[in-house]
Amino acid sequence: MSIERVGFIGLGIMGRPMAKNLIKAGYRLVVHNRSRKAVRELVSAGAEEAYSPAEVAERSSVVITMLPDSPDVEDVALGENGIIYGMKSGNYYIDMSSISPSVARHISEVMKSKGVHMLDAPVSGGEKGAIDGTLAIMVGGRKEDFEYVKPLLEVMGSKVTYVGSIGSGNTVKLVNQIIVALNIAAFSEAFALGVRAGIDPSIIYDAIREGMAGSKALDLRIPHILEGNFRPGFKLSLHLKDINNAMTAAGENGVPLFLTSVVREMMKKIISEGDGESDHSSIIKFYEKLVGVEVRNRRA
Amino acid sequence: MSIERVGFIGLGIMGRPMAKNLIKAGYRLVVHNRSRKAVRELVSAGAEEAYSPAEVAERSSVVITMLPDSPDVEDVALGENGIIYGMKSGNYYIDMSSISPSVARHISEVMKSKGVHMLDAPVSGGEKGAIDGTLAIMVGGRKEDFEYVKPLLEVMGSKVTYVGSIGSGNTVKLVNQIIVALNIAAFSEAFALGVRAGIDPSIIYDAIREGMAGSKALDLRIPHILEGNFRPGFKLSLHLKDINNAMTAAGENGVPLFLTSVVREMMKKIISEGDGESDHSSIIKFYEKLVGVEVRNRRA
Repeated sequence: MSIERVGFIGLGIMGRPMAKNLIKAGYRLVVHNRSRKAVRELVSAGAEEAYSPAEVAERSSVVITMLPDSPDVEDVALGENGIIYGMKSGNYYIDMSSISPSVARHISEVMKSKGVHMLDAPVSGGEKGAIDGTLAIMVGGRKEDFEYVKPLLEVMGSKVTYVGSIGSGNTVKLVNQIIVALNIAAFSEAFALGVRAGIDPSIIYDAIREGMAGSKALDLRIPHILEGNFRPGFKLSLHLKDINNAMTAAGENGVPLFLTSVVREMMKKIISEGDGESDHSSIIKFYEKLVGVEVRNRRA
Repeated sequence: MSIERVGFIGLGIMGRPMAKNLIKAGYRLVVHNRSRKAVRELVSAGAEEAYSPAEVAERSSVVITMLPDSPDVEDVALGENGIIYGMKSGNYYIDMSSISPSVARHISEVMKSKGVHMLDAPVSGGEKGAIDGTLAIMVGGRKEDFEYVKPLLEVMGSKVTYVGSIGSGNTVKLVNQIIVALNIAAFSEAFALGVRAGIDPSIIYDAIREGMAGSKALDLRIPHILEGNFRPGFKLSLHLKDINNAMTAAGENGVPLFLTSVVREMMKKIISEGDGESDHSSIIKFYEKLVGVEVRNRRA
């Protein structure tokens, strides 16, 4: 049985290009979004319009959501005119938002009582990955449900990994986000020392980047930091949201996040000073202000 | 003026292959070491033997030391029968050990009073890098002194970087060691959460390694951890030594190392339980014991 119509709710920076890629791949899309402007854009691209999550669900066999955080997903899935009220038994619901794993599990339980198969499938790779269809997608749920929707996910992502039962997609995403935040904080703390001791940060970067201190975070962020460029690849405020969800998941699992909790305080401090919409590498500003240095290119 | 004879003191795991590479490159070596076994090995390879650091210095125009930590270097450089007592004005002293930057600066001041040019040139790349002559070497001192000894350093390393005034080599090395320790701790904390939540760690690794959480630390250590292999690439006890030197340097520069100090406590705890001679990725054992999981491959 092939997938007939796909519903897509949440047409933000990520959702819009993901939905467009599904249309390009030949899927018939039914879309809904709080702001109608994005809906009109998708309708021009060939999608059909719906006026509530429930209506999207009534008209689709698979519904996808791509929303900011846990409360948004709970509301769209289970709230007034939510997806649950339009879903038929045997249909599929894929939440691709990055939310709390326990919220994903809770929604799945409610969906299951109506015979709906739910998967949690958060992504990483940012706007560029969404546009290029090269997202990494981490999927939790029943294995056979994963196999059924996999062709759909492979339109949006180039690395689609089944990671375990429902909620596991978001748990792996949180593992990822913890590592990214800590790797940024790691080079921030270390560079603060090196630069405070008088060494040119671009020379430090050049000396260490190929060795064991090397990382994607270092290579993707230090060159921008050296130019004083904090335009968001990934917004600090969104990273804090993920870290808050990580703290919740850690609390539920009895895992003390010693380092993550310290970095979270740094993020909150920097956001309180107005940098929430800047790139998450703004974590380095915490150290810059604290020790009175600027990690900037001084060569040429 | 070409370099005539090179003195080499400290023929340990790193020093032995570094000295051998100098012999292979055609340099006449005068060697000294506390244990005579290593001296005999180098003599068989073509080196001349000396019986004290002072004697090495008397018979060489450039002296290299490769020793465990700051007190060892202070002793060999300035102690009884130390290098300083054999050095002639215009000679060169290169300390390639990883020590405290302020100790390097202090020794340099004393050497300078005798007209000796000192460089601090710690390495990274481990035993394999030492054997292959592919070490990364971070060099601090006067630029013209660096240029003079550069051909010698390029025999031992494939990436030789001038980073600034005396002590800067060790400062950059400490920046490197902070990042490596924190990147290991980062994935340890994150994997503890993921595995405690029930996800197979090899699946987590596969799902995240190509994305922004990717790092050399992750790729070089997680595969071994998954196999339960903690044979030292780099010993935890040596990494703690570097971190202690980093804390000292940070104190002198007024830089609070929030994250590094937490990871240092974890290292000390794991060492107190007998893992000092294990690989530094043993940091993960702190979390494994704390939350009662094992980060081990469960596939196949």
